[in-house]
Amino acid sequence: MARFAAGVEYVGTGYCGWQALGKQKTLQAELERAMSRVADHKLVVTAAGRTDAGVHALQQVIHFDSDAQRDEYAWVLGTNSNVDRQLSLSWVRPVPLEFHARHRAIERSYRYVIHNRRARHALLVDRATWWPRPLDADAMREAAQVLLGEHDFSSFRDSECQAPTPVRELRRLTLRRHGEFVVLDIAGNAFLHHMVRNIVGTLGEVGIGRRPVEWVAEVLAARDRTRAGPTASAAGLYFVGPEYPAEFGLPKPPQPWFPGI
Amino acid sequence: MARFAAGVEYVGTGYCGWQALGKQKTLQAELERAMSRVADHKLVVTAAGRTDAGVHALQQVIHFDSDAQRDEYAWVLGTNSNVDRQLSLSWVRPVPLEFHARHRAIERSYRYVIHNRRARHALLVDRATWWPRPLDADAMREAAQVLLGEHDFSSFRDSECQAPTPVRELRRLTLRRHGEFVVLDIAGNAFLHHMVRNIVGTLGEVGIGRRPVEWVAEVLAARDRTRAGPTASAAGLYFVGPEYPAEFGLPKPPQPWFPGI
Repeated sequence: MARFAAGVEYVGTGYCGWQALGKQKTLQAELERAMSRVADHKLVVTAAGRTDAGVHALQQVIHFDSDAQRDEYAWVLGTNSNVDRQLSLSWVRPVPLEFHARHRAIERSYRYVIHNRRARHALLVDRATWWPRPLDADAMREAAQVLLGEHDFSSFRDSECQAPTPVRELRRLTLRRHGEFVVLDIAGNAFLHHMVRNIVGTLGEVGIGRRPVEWVAEVLAARDRTRAGPTASAAGLYFVGPEYPAEFGLPKPPQPWFPGI
Repeated sequence: MARFAAGVEYVGTGYCGWQALGKQKTLQAELERAMSRVADHKLVVTAAGRTDAGVHALQQVIHFDSDAQRDEYAWVLGTNSNVDRQLSLSWVRPVPLEFHARHRAIERSYRYVIHNRRARHALLVDRATWWPRPLDADAMREAAQVLLGEHDFSSFRDSECQAPTPVRELRRLTLRRHGEFVVLDIAGNAFLHHMVRNIVGTLGEVGIGRRPVEWVAEVLAARDRTRAGPTASAAGLYFVGPEYPAEFGLPKPPQPWFPGI
């Protein structure tokens, strides 16, 4: 039995998220159906991060086991010929059996894209979150700094989150205005359920001036989800990718090319 | 009667192009239907450029006449509430009656996006052209220089083109590799039918090494469509926008934010 890792890209719109659950249309189920056909045996894939409905991925990473003798590019081409057009494999690599897409990931990166203009944008339908009220990106950036480092993120954790601990380490956070866009890039060891979207929804309260910059520190300290802002839409969220120890030799998370910063 | 100009954005996928022709689903027909509803009278729109099926626009410009008393943003909001999600108005401005979206445009800009990687990309479905064979962007750029300036572009003109003359002036042309992308930005006084896509298809022959750099000069000099390369796909083409004399005070073509260069 050999183990493989693969890079997966998708537009999450129209899927009930990553994880296969009953008869819902999920990315995992769609991928397993196609890859089992390429492998010629039933195949199970495990992902670095189980994204929610509507969330996109630039480089989700999965692993799977198979004895099928296939060239790396044959996996890519065969799978891509058998899945929806909004889902694709970008690469497949052999990995040692101790590799695990979720457990061996040491960091995860996300990008959140807000389109901040009075009129909606046709080209960004389902690809960004539209917030028509003018945002003060400088205030949002200032407010966000308190989130860096290791904290109990209970205030930004969905009530259905099943993680054993609410402690996570946010390692990088940049928030920039780029014309009509406000873009948040965020990386940490791991994220709680809805954590990025709850952070964005909370920073948004500061961005529209409803709350002062200092409020975010109060929300964090409260360890209480009811104190934070609303959960921002899934449409603006991109899972940029996980990172693994160098020994596995896997591609790094890509540099996001949308929306151009 | 008052005249207005408007900026229009769209994903061209699924439309039979801009121009209303019989019962086909076109952008013009969709827009006139929605705007007539907002105006409460039958309204006709005239575009700067009639894009083909599958071609996108960052800032198409239209003009229309109406006596309806509407706030500028009411036009935008009303229209956007009544059209497909992949079509939107970004602004509406009053203009003098001598303004004409097509005849008064003094320059037009396009961007063409090629995704150049062996595996297809799910996030770019219908938003870029996928060319899996490695392209030599430097050779393409070098070959393209001969097209700058005023020329008879018959070799890059579709057989159905109805323009009275094949002479056009290409004013700017930049071609760059940006990671997995090769992006062509091109601007000129006006373009013949399929001209940008035929230029891209021709440069592509140089990019994959099938033709030498000098070949593009020969193609141009031949004034014969059969000598040029194939017509590149509509999916990679973005009409960035037209430009007008400063006296009209209209927004300039936007800085394209996809794919990030």
